[in-house]
Amino acid sequence: MKIREMGMAIGKLTTGEKNCLTDVPGVMVGHVTLDYPLNETGTDYACTGVTAILPHSGNMFKEKVTAASCVLNGFGKTIGLVQVNELGVLESPIMLTNTFGVSAVTQGTLEYMLEENPEIGDTTGTINIVVGECNDSYLNSIRKFPVKPKHAIEAIKKASNQQADEGAVGAGKGMVCFGYKGGIGSSSRVATDYTVGCMVLSNFGRKEDFRGFQYETGGGLSETADGSIIIVLATDAPLSDRQLKRVAKRCGIGLGRTGSHFSHGSGDIVIAFSTAHKIPHFLDETAEIRTQLREDHPIMNQLFAAAAEAAEEAILNSLTQAVTTQGREGHVVEAICLRKEGN
Amino acid sequence: MKIREMGMAIGKLTTGEKNCLTDVPGVMVGHVTLDYPLNETGTDYACTGVTAILPHSGNMFKEKVTAASCVLNGFGKTIGLVQVNELGVLESPIMLTNTFGVSAVTQGTLEYMLEENPEIGDTTGTINIVVGECNDSYLNSIRKFPVKPKHAIEAIKKASNQQADEGAVGAGKGMVCFGYKGGIGSSSRVATDYTVGCMVLSNFGRKEDFRGFQYETGGGLSETADGSIIIVLATDAPLSDRQLKRVAKRCGIGLGRTGSHFSHGSGDIVIAFSTAHKIPHFLDETAEIRTQLREDHPIMNQLFAAAAEAAEEAILNSLTQAVTTQGREGHVVEAICLRKEGN
Amino acid sequence: MKIREMGMAIGKLTTGEKNCLTDVPGVMVGHVTLDYPLNETGTDYACTGVTAILPHSGNMFKEKVTAASCVLNGFGKTIGLVQVNELGVLESPIMLTNTFGVSAVTQGTLEYMLEENPEIGDTTGTINIVVGECNDSYLNSIRKFPVKPKHAIEAIKKASNQQADEGAVGAGKGMVCFGYKGGIGSSSRVATDYTVGCMVLSNFGRKEDFRGFQYETGGGLSETADGSIIIVLATDAPLSDRQLKRVAKRCGIGLGRTGSHFSHGSGDIVIAFSTAHKIPHFLDETAEIRTQLREDHPIMNQLFAAAAEAAEEAILNSLTQAVTTQGREGHVVEAICLRKEGN
Amino acid sequence: MKIREMGMAIGKLTTGEKNCLTDVPGVMVGHVTLDYPLNETGTDYACTGVTAILPHSGNMFKEKVTAASCVLNGFGKTIGLVQVNELGVLESPIMLTNTFGVSAVTQGTLEYMLEENPEIGDTTGTINIVVGECNDSYLNSIRKFPVKPKHAIEAIKKASNQQADEGAVGAGKGMVCFGYKGGIGSSSRVATDYTVGCMVLSNFGRKEDFRGFQYETGGGLSETADGSIIIVLATDAPLSDRQLKRVAKRCGIGLGRTGSHFSHGSGDIVIAFSTAHKIPHFLDETAEIRTQLREDHPIMNQLFAAAAEAAEEAILNSLTQAVTTQGREGHVVEAICLRKEGN
Repeated sequence: MKIREMGMAIGKLTTGEKNCLTDVPGVMVGHVTLDYPLNETGTDYACTGVTAILPHSGNMFKEKVTAASCVLNGFGKTIGLVQVNELGVLESPIMLTNTFGVSAVTQGTLEYMLEENPEIGDTTGTINIVVGECNDSYLNSIRKFPVKPKHAIEAIKKASNQQADEGAVGAGKGMVCFGYKGGIGSSSRVATDYTVGCMVLSNFGRKEDFRGFQYETGGGLSETADGSIIIVLATDAPLSDRQLKRVAKRCGIGLGRTGSHFSHGSGDIVIAFSTAHKIPHFLDETAEIRTQLREDHPIMNQLFAAAAEAAEEAILNSLTQAVTTQGREGHVVEAICLRKEGN
Repeated sequence: MKIREMGMAIGKLTTGEKNCLTDVPGVMVGHVTLDYPLNETGTDYACTGVTAILPHSGNMFKEKVTAASCVLNGFGKTIGLVQVNELGVLESPIMLTNTFGVSAVTQGTLEYMLEENPEIGDTTGTINIVVGECNDSYLNSIRKFPVKPKHAIEAIKKASNQQADEGAVGAGKGMVCFGYKGGIGSSSRVATDYTVGCMVLSNFGRKEDFRGFQYETGGGLSETADGSIIIVLATDAPLSDRQLKRVAKRCGIGLGRTGSHFSHGSGDIVIAFSTAHKIPHFLDETAEIRTQLREDHPIMNQLFAAAAEAAEEAILNSLTQAVTTQGREGHVVEAICLRKEGN
Repeated sequence: MKIREMGMAIGKLTTGEKNCLTDVPGVMVGHVTLDYPLNETGTDYACTGVTAILPHSGNMFKEKVTAASCVLNGFGKTIGLVQVNELGVLESPIMLTNTFGVSAVTQGTLEYMLEENPEIGDTTGTINIVVGECNDSYLNSIRKFPVKPKHAIEAIKKASNQQADEGAVGAGKGMVCFGYKGGIGSSSRVATDYTVGCMVLSNFGRKEDFRGFQYETGGGLSETADGSIIIVLATDAPLSDRQLKRVAKRCGIGLGRTGSHFSHGSGDIVIAFSTAHKIPHFLDETAEIRTQLREDHPIMNQLFAAAAEAAEEAILNSLTQAVTTQGREGHVVEAICLRKEGN
Repeated sequence: MKIREMGMAIGKLTTGEKNCLTDVPGVMVGHVTLDYPLNETGTDYACTGVTAILPHSGNMFKEKVTAASCVLNGFGKTIGLVQVNELGVLESPIMLTNTFGVSAVTQGTLEYMLEENPEIGDTTGTINIVVGECNDSYLNSIRKFPVKPKHAIEAIKKASNQQADEGAVGAGKGMVCFGYKGGIGSSSRVATDYTVGCMVLSNFGRKEDFRGFQYETGGGLSETADGSIIIVLATDAPLSDRQLKRVAKRCGIGLGRTGSHFSHGSGDIVIAFSTAHKIPHFLDETAEIRTQLREDHPIMNQLFAAAAEAAEEAILNSLTQAVTTQGREGHVVEAICLRKEGN
């Protein structure tokens, strides 16, 4: 269940229709979940997956979107940010997976994009793939590399603009958050004329630091290593890459409000994009026309609040949507359980 | 009153003895407060001041300390960060004042340092002055430039390692926070063997966004422009400038927890220093020996939590310590009033 | 003389009409030069000045321009970059002076802008002043603070779109470059439809590192401390702040080609702006329309080359335009002298 | 031939014994070169490879070294920099390959490191792999993915501290620089007590922009797309990560002096490490002792010059060491040919 179905809500802005990243028109999400033993006894276990986030349903290389990133804490192996930072554009889906799945997912995504674009690497240069990751090694046999390139391709092909599944799905299958089962969570906000959507891959936090809501403290892992969180933010507001980076940074506020201190060993990374403009790869014009939000318009502050609220609520949803999950070596991570009244 | 005197506390770590920036051994604070009419009718009014934060009582140019900064939102006029970022050292006091007082305070601080160091600008190059600012123009006639160079010198000379005054004092005299009187606030934390101290100059936030505690909602300014906050963090933990920057960044978590979204027009800036090493200006050696905290030692995460907790509590103290203040044009900003039980 | 009058040229692109920053339409430059003894014996001497660079002749606060900065080496006291980096705009002139003149020049510029804009600090927030500096203490009695606020105001008022004076004028009066007299230099380039103009305040480099041209090696200071250089780049090309930062960074290539290694004690800083858009301070619209150069259009690489070429040639002009200058303590810095054929 | 064998030299500092990256004690280089048809007609051709640079011969994960990066122009797909920037350490070899080989090389390097370290991903978290790349698609059938994980492992295992091969070897096999055959080049400098070594993977530049030396202008590609360059800098000087980043940045000066303008489509990236300290992965101590070069010691400026000189000379060596190479679709890139006297 999402936290709003439990009677909770974060912040003041209203949510989009689905309270999901896919409320931003055109944005699509696809999950591939791996859940099977890798040896006879099941001590080796695939408890992981891939999640694909597509900025739109068209050709992502030929129609790029404005993008930015914000590294809250850089203990992470996310790839693709060097070019996003230099050029301010995204030209591929944003892929999420486990830490050691990055090369397979990069390979699969690249193969997908090459298939779609025969010019790449032949007549028109290369393509920048963006992959974010968290370490699911408590539940998943990460050293066995269960994620393969085909899973990335499958996740992209399954992507849709529907309400996305949350919790222990896709890249979130093996993730742990505040000692309980975490993973994929999503939320959205409406800021006057625009929508802000957020999807997280949550895998961070110590049980004792959780500030989200009152819960039954029995269960949960009492000792968890530093984890990570990847936060993907989408909006249809017409923002420049610099403006988008400002908005992305506010996701850290939401993260902090759940109880995180961006711990040392955590890769806490925000990747944001705006669908307001499609930037053609091939164009003979000298210049482009861009619409850009007035920086001092009150909507800018609304977008900041929206980013903080949606990130916080997405993280909480990643917990309340997740189910108790068993993985490698018989490890079990329980779902968090809201404290009932009277306790 | 500090919030702890009201029965509130932030976070889990214990505070230092004074719950103040000056709990970090050697760190000193001095305030000069300006509070007088600038014309006969008092429509023009000096409601402002200067606060000086000294890393130690010695010669700050000849014995530099490790330093770092973190710009949470850069709508601000803080000076000195270019060199702090390049070299990772602080060689002057950190001065706080109003936005249009920056040049006078820079000049006064420079004169003080030149007096102390006849070599500067003659035989040994120049000196980098660090001044942070917030805009107190609701209460203070900022266009009349009431702050003069002598006030900076006076603030430096008054600095002591005692418990620092808070609220509507020094640079905090004319500041407004969440619609109520803000200004100077401080708090500290103990992280195993080390102390983290924080002092803020708070001047940000809309009343409706405050999340710190329940308060009597009558009074307060309902419409406040975007403000700013300068956060100064000190520690005696042996951190490199990079590590210090990591710790400084976590002050933003505390800021977010009070209700801020780092609003567009706010200069939200953290300046941090470590007193663990005094770095001599004159030294013939080729190399120096530095002790540096192990990055993955649990104390690092404690320092992160300490920064977030101390920043949050310092902001709340800046509110609860401040008194109702009248300034230019008869403008009044009320002190926040804790909601009594039963309301 | 400019180097082109000596038969030299840098690079392949053609220069603008005046081979000067003021080739960019609307850009204006004004110098105030101080040159007089400060005591009877003349051991204390004012050998310094102020240079004002205006993006246009209108109200710079009410009509801002796109801006960016690039810190090549941050041993410097330039102010105003925090806000330029956050918002990507310039709302004041760019002022140049000596290191200890920064507070006076900030104050004077602020007073000028407040005079022009009665709303600032009253009904509409504050203003961000940008001041760059180099240390002219070999020739100038920097500790005596000869630069006053009025000199900044005067420099702004004297600004014109004419060919700017170069060499030992304005802020360049007391500067030393590669052991010879440096200071203000300028150059420009045409990149298809656009103009790139560059003005430098040169005060860096050891004699032995100079690579610009063959010169008479007699004379010149053999021992010079690390200095600094401020590089101001202007263009009428429609660039976003991110694109502008990319172009600004290429000035470092030109600087390196003159022989600099961005030495430790040098504040090597580029400040760039584009006049293509005037961004109104007051505007009720939600969004603005911007024209932006296609990032992959060949003109982008031309702009990169233009920045490198113009910066290099501006530095060389700052040398060849400068005259032998005497300052404090009888110190003399000679003009560089081109090596004649046959030597 | 290296340029010094041709009678040329860059700069003033003396080279190390081998004039190679491997002059830095302990640093090792290994190449795997792929050179064979991928189909019967040879229109598809593997003309590429992998180069491994090891900071030392021990366990790179258990004994990390200080590291930093500098992105001169970020149109590139280098991975691993997020964590290098956050933590200032390198815990893997630096791998170089073609753009589409990044995932295979990441996978192979990861497998190698996992084999060496059974704790990774099981009891002690993950590992950060660093891979740099350039696009060799003119000569190499990059879309066919000839580079496999095993080639990365092989390159690591072949690494030695001997004089490294240069030119069309390893990752340099298919690269093009200034229209001629480029690839791997290396050079080194002695800065008083320390050595600075540089290795480049050169794949950038238009023929007409080359400034390195006079050459026979017949031959060479007249039209080349924007390329890239990866510059790896090693030193045994005791530098902090911040200091190392300062040194790394100066490689851009050397790059600029060869004629580059860091063109739009070029991924111009410097990765630097210092072998002065081995930082243990497992250590119970609270703190470490580090020796750090005095920032204002003249050796710092020597290191800056060394970085610029070694990078420039390494690039020139990558040209003069390369041989004419034929690749896919019958494409041929000629070796550059020094202009003979009298021409």
